[in-house]
Amino acid sequence: MKKSQKPSTHRRPTLKDIARDLGLHVSTISRALNPDTKHGVSPELADKIRRVSARRGYRPNAAAYNLKTNRSRIVGVVIPDITDPVFPPIIRGIEDGLARHGYVAVIANTDGNAQKEAQVIDSMRGRGVDGLILASVLRHDRGAVNAAAGLPVVTVSRRTDDTDYSSVVHDEDDGMRQVLTHLASLGHRNIVTIAGPQTISTGYNRYSSYVHHCETLKLGAAQPLASFARAFNETEGERCAEELLATGRRFTAIVCANDRLAVGVVTALRRHGIDCPRDVSVTGFNDMPLCDRLFPPLTTVRVQHHRAGLEAAETMVGLIARSIATPRHIVLPVALVARESTQPPAAMRGERRAQVSGNRVSRK
Amino acid sequence: MKKSQKPSTHRRPTLKDIARDLGLHVSTISRALNPDTKHGVSPELADKIRRVSARRGYRPNAAAYNLKTNRSRIVGVVIPDITDPVFPPIIRGIEDGLARHGYVAVIANTDGNAQKEAQVIDSMRGRGVDGLILASVLRHDRGAVNAAAGLPVVTVSRRTDDTDYSSVVHDEDDGMRQVLTHLASLGHRNIVTIAGPQTISTGYNRYSSYVHHCETLKLGAAQPLASFARAFNETEGERCAEELLATGRRFTAIVCANDRLAVGVVTALRRHGIDCPRDVSVTGFNDMPLCDRLFPPLTTVRVQHHRAGLEAAETMVGLIARSIATPRHIVLPVALVARESTQPPAAMRGERRAQVSGNRVSRK
Repeated sequence: MKKSQKPSTHRRPTLKDIARDLGLHVSTISRALNPDTKHGVSPELADKIRRVSARRGYRPNAAAYNLKTNRSRIVGVVIPDITDPVFPPIIRGIEDGLARHGYVAVIANTDGNAQKEAQVIDSMRGRGVDGLILASVLRHDRGAVNAAAGLPVVTVSRRTDDTDYSSVVHDEDDGMRQVLTHLASLGHRNIVTIAGPQTISTGYNRYSSYVHHCETLKLGAAQPLASFARAFNETEGERCAEELLATGRRFTAIVCANDRLAVGVVTALRRHGIDCPRDVSVTGFNDMPLCDRLFPPLTTVRVQHHRAGLEAAETMVGLIARSIATPRHIVLPVALVARESTQPPAAMRGERRAQVSGNRVSRK
Repeated sequence: MKKSQKPSTHRRPTLKDIARDLGLHVSTISRALNPDTKHGVSPELADKIRRVSARRGYRPNAAAYNLKTNRSRIVGVVIPDITDPVFPPIIRGIEDGLARHGYVAVIANTDGNAQKEAQVIDSMRGRGVDGLILASVLRHDRGAVNAAAGLPVVTVSRRTDDTDYSSVVHDEDDGMRQVLTHLASLGHRNIVTIAGPQTISTGYNRYSSYVHHCETLKLGAAQPLASFARAFNETEGERCAEELLATGRRFTAIVCANDRLAVGVVTALRRHGIDCPRDVSVTGFNDMPLCDRLFPPLTTVRVQHHRAGLEAAETMVGLIARSIATPRHIVLPVALVARESTQPPAAMRGERRAQVSGNRVSRK
């Protein structure tokens, strides 16, 4: 390939090029393009300089700015997987929040792998990020803690037990209380749960709250029945539903630790000829996109993903600017969204009673 | 707030600090930590220096590197909205592809607003991005073209008609051919469509291909019936389904320009007591996450979102490095995924015939 074929447009024009075009001194151009110094140039001239610079494709040299301030204005965001529908709204919130302050996010996916988490944090450190927002952390996460040492850190949607990282999370306990109160008000008494991974704060807190509020509301047997998912996804929801059915215990409702588990549960129940909500009510947690379009539309807990992202970004900017000096913990309120996946148990509806016993549906 | 309360961990250690700790000259530390020069230091010493640097939380000064190379190693990615389920898999592909080359992505959302698109491109230029990957472009997009002038650009999932930007897109035409062939093989003849926005290449190409292949396969009336969505979302799917029903035309299948439109269509049909697939078959396009968990599971065209992102990233890196000198256009193959939202029309199944006429379902 000959040199002459390379697109000449890729040469980045410098301040000198703009100065030559306009017959002005380079320092005038520089002053006009810097928001902090443009008052030294007449507004008309500053406008003209900006127009010509834009037309020529001039870009201020961010690297020089960053070198001077020792800031990259980049925040690293570490998540398990952007294709999990829970995370895009959080990321959108983070991006919107950072943008208000002239920061941008770079995102890395860990796929829930602790080693990869430490690696991507290391790599972000190598790029000189000004701080880290972690949506990937475990309750005890020495890998992340070591890798992030010395940087401002905010966890979002999850938190660690053993550090004083700032955090933005949802009121898991109140969400679970609302779910169980809703089911109790419909007449459910035999309520089982599919819990999330207990190594993650959301999984742990939602399960603890399930146990606590079952007691408070006098629900469930002496020993509440739970199946524990290894990950928050549909496949694990199916597996855990099979496990619950195999116990032979009777139940009229399954409380799931998140929506994706609930989606898997509905699929597994259908495979056994058990209809949700006619035979068994099912609830989720998160109100992820499309929850209202599933069949049946899923009763769930709406959390404020976008706002959580915004608050995490604001906290991060405060930590970087040192206007926040001690860890800040934000707990956002949640709200039950009752849809068609929950209804009174068959016995309460005065219909033929559907008894769900083990993996059989027997009608009396 | 007293100064002493500020967390001291936020002070970034310098090369000098590491040199002092180890009793070495600062140039030795610098050489050891630079992959290009570390051969000048014994492997054992280089290892020790790296360990101590990591423990002290030393970060190489990315800004200095960038200033020297005049590269930021950042690529701007412009999308309509990360919370639209189509985009996360593309972004994941871009991130994975860029990471292979030591690049990262910063993402901006336009919400489909042309003015915002130009603004975010401007702002990315201000940060000194090395290039732009655009998933937001219209077929004729002067705003983006002007704002991006002088930077390497790759469009992904969409393309422009009027520039020679490199592009990575899906084989829309073959996808539509497969959808119509599938419906024809089930026995459908009266097939209508909900087209996407004609200002976007995906909307335009899928509709053109629908018209073309209806003719080739001798499907539809002389004039195929279409309703045009203003956006690729569920609400527009519902609106367009209502529009089709209001025409009073009989049809047995609705071909939708994407999955989200199809989700809206199924909802609107259900509202009229029209069951998918018993009364009307519905198809989507994209195979977005959860398509298989909707009710009914959606027949659609699987496109290679992740691979498109990867290819866009590879093309971008090639443009930046100037190993690619002329625009490169990649068209990825697609595959039909037949699920339960399509079945033979009622008349072909030997059941009581469900005649869908206007917005009524009359059973003979």
